Amino acid sequence: MVGPEIERLIQLLSRLPGLGPRSARRAALRLVEKREALLIPLAAAMAEAAAKVKTCAVCGNFDTIEPCAICADHRRDASQLCVVEDVAGLWAMERTGSFKGRYAVLGGLLSALDGVAPEDLGIASLVARARDPLVKEVILATPATVEGQTTAHYIADRLADCDVSVTGLAHGVPVGGELDHLDDGTITAAFRARRRF
Amino acid sequence: MVGPEIERLIQLLSRLPGLGPRSARRAALRLVEKREALLIPLAAAMAEAAAKVKTCAVCGNFDTIEPCAICADHRRDASQLCVVEDVAGLWAMERTGSFKGRYAVLGGLLSALDGVAPEDLGIASLVARARDPLVKEVILATPATVEGQTTAHYIADRLADCDVSVTGLAHGVPVGGELDHLDDGTITAAFRARRRF
Repeated sequence: MVGPEIERLIQLLSRLPGLGPRSARRAALRLVEKREALLIPLAAAMAEAAAKVKTCAVCGNFDTIEPCAICADHRRDASQLCVVEDVAGLWAMERTGSFKGRYAVLGGLLSALDGVAPEDLGIASLVARARDPLVKEVILATPATVEGQTTAHYIADRLADCDVSVTGLAHGVPVGGELDHLDDGTITAAFRARRRF
Repeated sequence: MVGPEIERLIQLLSRLPGLGPRSARRAALRLVEKREALLIPLAAAMAEAAAKVKTCAVCGNFDTIEPCAICADHRRDASQLCVVEDVAGLWAMERTGSFKGRYAVLGGLLSALDGVAPEDLGIASLVARARDPLVKEVILATPATVEGQTTAHYIADRLADCDVSVTGLAHGVPVGGELDHLDDGTITAAFRARRRF
């Protein structure tokens, strides 16, 4: 009933995070309905992104310039290196505006199950960057999940003989978070790390 | 921090149903991450859909042929005309496999608030189609919402002097539906339309 062109559009859209088969179908319909206002501009924006956006060879960020705007910005603090799982993590750190150093994007997390080894995450080149005498601190900002923390511990071990201090993001109660909605592990971590009021 | 190309991609993606600003950002990242496997094929699929998919001048369905495959299929029952709000409604009817007639896609619902008048929905041409002596029944399958039912009543009035029987989808308990999860209106409608077991 649906032509192969729309079927293919639905199938590709359903691979985007947040879109299941049903919402991909709705999205495809909206696109075809809004041909001039949405479908054609989005197709053009995607083609442009595909043509122009590159992965920064230094840090792994996405940008149209190489090295990326963050690596090329000499006002950024070269003494701090923040390790994130992916570019989404880098963007999240940038949104806070609280970090002014450089990044290393792993592009994943160590996982025996999925066969992700240290070589796949470019950890050797991260260690090489950390050996730069300019670098004083490596901040491990991988997710607070089992895989994220396993990866952070592995990197900390690999950095043991580098002359840098290795730190990690603090665990605790999210700002605005209700205790009753938090898991026990977070509350325990927040209790242990309690600070003078 | 994000280049203008990715910013534009996020902005356009966030206009798809089911994607808010945050999930549009995640989707844009996934696209750039999966450049060869997802971004380039999706850009191409959208360009192809934009070039090939047309609105059927007879019924309002989307297809690459004109008139659409449903209107062109002579095995479909020309005596039944099913009125739906949009192509999503047409697809939903088609998925059931229970309707073998033709369609009329309104492309919206009457709404004083949004300034949608009968002319905007092509109701005159729907009435003209219903006057074809081949047409025996018009099935009003607009949504069971206030606007959907207002539109259905308006169309029924306009069809009053046509020689067709005008029907509507039955209200009742959805198959698999728990009474406790249903609104009172649905239960009342299902009770009033109760049938011998």
